[in-house]
Amino acid sequence: MNSVDLNTLEAWQAARLLARRELLAADLARACLDRIVQRDGEIHAFAHLDPDHAMAQAHALDRGAIRGPLHGLPLGVKDLFDTVDFPTTYGSPIYEGHRPDSDAAAVALCREAGALVIGKTVTTEFAFFHPGPTCNPRDVRHTPGGSSSGSAAAVADHMLPLALGTQTSGSVIRPAAYCGVVGYKASSGRVPRAGVKSISEALDTLGGFGRSVRDVALLGAVLTGDRRLEEGLDDPKAPRIGMCRTAEWPHADADTQQAWAEASAVLIRHAPATQDVALPEDMPDLVALQKEIMAFQMYRALSYERLCSLDQFSLQLQAQMDDGAKISSASHAHHLWQARTARRRINLVFEQFDVLVAPSAAGEAPIGTDATGDPVFCRGWTLLGLPCVHLPFARGRHGLPIGVQLIGRWGDDHRLLAFAQWVHDRLMSKGR
Amino acid sequence: MNSVDLNTLEAWQAARLLARRELLAADLARACLDRIVQRDGEIHAFAHLDPDHAMAQAHALDRGAIRGPLHGLPLGVKDLFDTVDFPTTYGSPIYEGHRPDSDAAAVALCREAGALVIGKTVTTEFAFFHPGPTCNPRDVRHTPGGSSSGSAAAVADHMLPLALGTQTSGSVIRPAAYCGVVGYKASSGRVPRAGVKSISEALDTLGGFGRSVRDVALLGAVLTGDRRLEEGLDDPKAPRIGMCRTAEWPHADADTQQAWAEASAVLIRHAPATQDVALPEDMPDLVALQKEIMAFQMYRALSYERLCSLDQFSLQLQAQMDDGAKISSASHAHHLWQARTARRRINLVFEQFDVLVAPSAAGEAPIGTDATGDPVFCRGWTLLGLPCVHLPFARGRHGLPIGVQLIGRWGDDHRLLAFAQWVHDRLMSKGR
Repeated sequence: MNSVDLNTLEAWQAARLLARRELLAADLARACLDRIVQRDGEIHAFAHLDPDHAMAQAHALDRGAIRGPLHGLPLGVKDLFDTVDFPTTYGSPIYEGHRPDSDAAAVALCREAGALVIGKTVTTEFAFFHPGPTCNPRDVRHTPGGSSSGSAAAVADHMLPLALGTQTSGSVIRPAAYCGVVGYKASSGRVPRAGVKSISEALDTLGGFGRSVRDVALLGAVLTGDRRLEEGLDDPKAPRIGMCRTAEWPHADADTQQAWAEASAVLIRHAPATQDVALPEDMPDLVALQKEIMAFQMYRALSYERLCSLDQFSLQLQAQMDDGAKISSASHAHHLWQARTARRRINLVFEQFDVLVAPSAAGEAPIGTDATGDPVFCRGWTLLGLPCVHLPFARGRHGLPIGVQLIGRWGDDHRLLAFAQWVHDRLMSKGR
Repeated sequence: MNSVDLNTLEAWQAARLLARRELLAADLARACLDRIVQRDGEIHAFAHLDPDHAMAQAHALDRGAIRGPLHGLPLGVKDLFDTVDFPTTYGSPIYEGHRPDSDAAAVALCREAGALVIGKTVTTEFAFFHPGPTCNPRDVRHTPGGSSSGSAAAVADHMLPLALGTQTSGSVIRPAAYCGVVGYKASSGRVPRAGVKSISEALDTLGGFGRSVRDVALLGAVLTGDRRLEEGLDDPKAPRIGMCRTAEWPHADADTQQAWAEASAVLIRHAPATQDVALPEDMPDLVALQKEIMAFQMYRALSYERLCSLDQFSLQLQAQMDDGAKISSASHAHHLWQARTARRRINLVFEQFDVLVAPSAAGEAPIGTDATGDPVFCRGWTLLGLPCVHLPFARGRHGLPIGVQLIGRWGDDHRLLAFAQWVHDRLMSKGR
């Protein structure tokens, strides 16, 4: 195999070769580092990089026993996760040079499974909206999305096969959509958040990026501890698909609407039980509720930084603090009740459907890198705590990626990933 | 006022004097430090203490404007919470000398409200069962309970008016019971856990200790952001009280059973709607479920430490890791579903009752300081995420404290605290 191509291997392909020692971790890491050197001056996916340390990890993995399903795979880690061997700055100047004394639990789980942390990827400031320097590798004039900007861009640009992200509003699914990679956000509560900078307990969720469903399933196996996902994905029967435009449909532009219609046409052919579905009428306005809960909780979760370093917050973050300060605790308790009730009601939908298909984003990645786009199509699902997978399969008017997201029942991450594979295969097949 | 007595003031009394500048923060801090010097060689409530730094904070508070409801109150912080100005060792030798770069959000909120962090209090190892050196100030041959051992002991021994704690099984309510102070565990999700060492996301909850219901309500005002609690507590009408022995009643010894009968007799006189209540029959075994969820989640939340420093874990913690490793992710997902269902079902009970009264512990603090007692009466309520208050009001056969815990509807912390005040007044009144 030509070493020039190694960085383009999908994670599951590389993992198989690495497990058989037909590929050395050092060769794969070298190929990824070469790609990073070649491209990152333009893309700016990395916040912290240490090639010597990456190669040292790779050599150690090549010398040792096979550790687990991620053995030898270079992993990008969003700079919101603590790492002992890289600085961790949470996208904020307040934490410049910060060196945690431990790895985030999710990072440790990936290392235990054999992953090699190649670097820390750019996050927006505290995973909110103020962007880092990252550009969209599909067209550098466009935003990669946020807040997991660097992770999505690095995977899309073949700098890495896998990367970790987090989602509080739409920070996995949106950048996956804008960069044209597969994004996976786990069910709330399934992946330990220990050592990940907390901005909203009710909403922060972990996930990651790959270039195929199998890749994110491999990562999901380690993050959730679900060993069934290590073996590859079941091939399910045609799922009962609910095509869910959501109440935010008017935000979808012509590209998103067209891709949606295309997906709908293909899926109904292969899964005859496919039908349009709306969320229950007694659901509250999930987008508004998500914003209220996030504002209240961010104000409080970032109390130390707000008290000691408010002048180092971006104007956007300062405005968010002002919004959060205005919400009373009694209102917040009511909002949390509404969220609990909505999380219960959504289960009824999953009695009728195995998986929902919804827009991931309003359209292609917007032009400009001074903003990260609108998470309006993600806020509701994040609030509901449901597992989500973004599948890229189309192009918009500027040739940038467009796709759809799949949403599963809470806790059923392994089934969602199997359905995502099934849907992906149908959407990508030539004679669809 | 004689300075010898200042350390015995309840928090709300001191807060009122401090807000009027009739009491200086420096005088109160000095009185507390004197008490600590006099007593802590025997009690070992503190993991880290810095008298000069405490006095510097006190003088700054006396010079500045009144900050908030905790202005000038010395606060003990369980050594599971990150603090920038004290070492934070989580009760483990792995973190000896560890210096966080930020305060836990809850600590920052308390400082914003004017609290003075006087020191870090002893926690068991990672808030699990391996004890620290703390003794029970009521009788040093007995355990103070855990895991918030130092916080409960320091408040009981008048070293401090207020202290922070956490509860994953029974780590606030049990030490409050054993040491004879008021303990308050907030509703799950109401207090930000950012910067508190995470051992189980589904279960970790924050709370604190004081010597009166009003004291913990003051702390609760700051922790939950509920300003209604700053003003003092409403005087509610006689609540509908559910006397709930729980399925664990056979674990209660004669002392607990007698105190229970006494409480029941008093309360039924003052609140005629009082009646016995059992949890719904379709509830799962909450204690078993809590243990399973905790074992799985601890194994994963402590992944970094488990991988790098397993030899520095106590044997108890190592055994817990072994237990956690045996649980499959599929079982865990099922357990989380059961917990969600149980959290929904318990709401039905609160349609009939305003507050539940249950045992806090099996009996008095057990003799010996090599174990911290059994949290069997707390595990279920923690799993359900409900707010709890421990009220001490009786003595057992060794003269050690006994009490009951009150449990409220999820999210209704302010109402629970008002009911707790009402119940406490009835239990303590002479002519009850």
